[in-house]
Amino acid sequence: MTESELHALLQTIDPVDPAVRDAAAVRQAALAKPPKSLGKLEDFAIRLAGITGQEKPKLDCCRVIVLAADNGVVEEGVSCTPQSVTWSQCVNMTRYMTGMSALAHASGDDVVVCDVGVAADCPAPIINRKLRYGTANLTREPAMTRQQAVDAIAVGIELAHQAKLDGIDCVGVGEMGIGNTTTSALVLSALTGLSVEQVTGRGGGLTDEGFAKKKQVIAHALALHHPDPEDPIDVLHKVGGLDLAAMCGTFIGCALERIPAVVDGYISIVAALAAVRLCPAVREVLFLSHASFEVGYRKAAEQIGLEPCLLMDMRLGEGSGCPLMFRILQGACAVQTHMATFAEAAINDDYLTEIRAKDSFTVR
Amino acid sequence: MTESELHALLQTIDPVDPAVRDAAAVRQAALAKPPKSLGKLEDFAIRLAGITGQEKPKLDCCRVIVLAADNGVVEEGVSCTPQSVTWSQCVNMTRYMTGMSALAHASGDDVVVCDVGVAADCPAPIINRKLRYGTANLTREPAMTRQQAVDAIAVGIELAHQAKLDGIDCVGVGEMGIGNTTTSALVLSALTGLSVEQVTGRGGGLTDEGFAKKKQVIAHALALHHPDPEDPIDVLHKVGGLDLAAMCGTFIGCALERIPAVVDGYISIVAALAAVRLCPAVREVLFLSHASFEVGYRKAAEQIGLEPCLLMDMRLGEGSGCPLMFRILQGACAVQTHMATFAEAAINDDYLTEIRAKDSFTVR
Repeated sequence: MTESELHALLQTIDPVDPAVRDAAAVRQAALAKPPKSLGKLEDFAIRLAGITGQEKPKLDCCRVIVLAADNGVVEEGVSCTPQSVTWSQCVNMTRYMTGMSALAHASGDDVVVCDVGVAADCPAPIINRKLRYGTANLTREPAMTRQQAVDAIAVGIELAHQAKLDGIDCVGVGEMGIGNTTTSALVLSALTGLSVEQVTGRGGGLTDEGFAKKKQVIAHALALHHPDPEDPIDVLHKVGGLDLAAMCGTFIGCALERIPAVVDGYISIVAALAAVRLCPAVREVLFLSHASFEVGYRKAAEQIGLEPCLLMDMRLGEGSGCPLMFRILQGACAVQTHMATFAEAAINDDYLTEIRAKDSFTVR
Repeated sequence: MTESELHALLQTIDPVDPAVRDAAAVRQAALAKPPKSLGKLEDFAIRLAGITGQEKPKLDCCRVIVLAADNGVVEEGVSCTPQSVTWSQCVNMTRYMTGMSALAHASGDDVVVCDVGVAADCPAPIINRKLRYGTANLTREPAMTRQQAVDAIAVGIELAHQAKLDGIDCVGVGEMGIGNTTTSALVLSALTGLSVEQVTGRGGGLTDEGFAKKKQVIAHALALHHPDPEDPIDVLHKVGGLDLAAMCGTFIGCALERIPAVVDGYISIVAALAAVRLCPAVREVLFLSHASFEVGYRKAAEQIGLEPCLLMDMRLGEGSGCPLMFRILQGACAVQTHMATFAEAAINDDYLTEIRAKDSFTVR
């Protein structure tokens, strides 16, 4: 896909059927409860109806899509975890042994892991869309070429398309890539102008020394590359990662395919923000799961204009918040589908006759 | 049950097996992830292990127990909803038509509705433990006798015992009772000394005039009865409700039976606080679901010393937060049971041989 083909595709994104959304809102308002008393569940139900085109939406089949890639910047000592863990955790995700995949598997959710740039070859069932063996060290040169960023976005779009073909009702977007809280901090700062302090956390558990080094690396890379905040592809290719770019593409693809897309933690929300910057309509399909413990998360959520609904103090990544959020979205569907309207909730004479026949019953 | 029998029973509460809890903490610390990166899920898994006595706990069967009763104080105009809705919503809960029961039914959770004081007779399958047809108007006299408060607590203890006999792994405690945000505000203020403003919200959607009236009623009742903050039964019988007292008993019963107990919203957390004041060990089995929109909720959570993990802006009651929280607790169990330890996550030669046989595979 060329960059101009990508921009042409973005023009076609139309993620919501307003007539169905409005019909769902009418039904929601008629349900037998005080107005707004189910809070975000009401909002979710109406939004899911608009995206899926079903007034009573259902999310039977949910999938976590994990984009995996390595980051050359780890040479600088920004992570306390060895790079080989990207590869081994990808393998373990497909064995349902990691945090996200244990959660997903227990609830019957599908997990798809896609290698878009891991520094070693990955075995099946990991999908091979490797664009390079890890990015370049962004403290010296752009992490990848501009075309590679577009190619990674195209991989994400393809995965969302495949999800649609597979009958998936809801997608969660996760990642695996040692060093990607550093690239996420860089992309968030580059897109928003937020300071290094505002976007940088300790990731997987850095020491004070490692944390100081990480902030230095981020400040240095921003000064070196001057990524253009008005040009998300410039930002992604200079200071991002292949995982981030492919996640950005997955969110775009979900908007193209009208699939609700769950945002996980810090890396996921930065990718979602990049997608919204490329095409504001992508926001319509996003659902934030948990408020990541990473410091930049809330800033990114504010930029997108959505709120998380889980306060779990989690910072594992992988997409681990997505299975929890699938359950909440399924709850929103259950309310929209199965709650009675005031008319339906009326306990009429036929019903009373029926239950009186079963039981000695008097209304006082 | 006499009051002295109740106090003797409270002495026997011992809700946690510390050896199992500690073994679970050892396993949790060995799981292949950065320490604490799964946040509250880790804490929940360890606590659930201690309560259930299973190092790898499972919560296959969850039940919402709804305690239903009417409140004489509604004569004062403290609610915008007619009293008959207590009865009709109880019936509709058993038809899976209300918010909580739609959520529970969609996830396969059990729902038990118990009439402990509805102002009309309720049909099966609502359990009949009616102690009176609604409470007295607490602006003029105590809501109920002291013995009736004890009797309502005993009903809750019985329902938790029945849950244990039925093989229930986790209980959520909900309610139905028009006027019970008023009684909850009264009980919370009486137990804690918090001001009327700090504990009083608009419930199901009061107008400014109705809200002012509600606060007047609460201030008047506190001045009339002088409930003793050191004596939760004095508080419950003078200014509480039969639903609140029975919910308090259900939490106590869960601690007696070592069943994890999910707290719903405002009314549920006030009942949980009363239970903790009667017996501090009850706190060990409590799990807070969502942060209710009602103003006093956070104060009650602070008093108990636990945090909610869902930010849903909900204020429906019924127990509607419980099915959402069951899913999160099941997630905590999945992590504890299915995630690999660092030792298990090692990708050894046997595994590599196996996957290489399936696929062309090289580690770069």
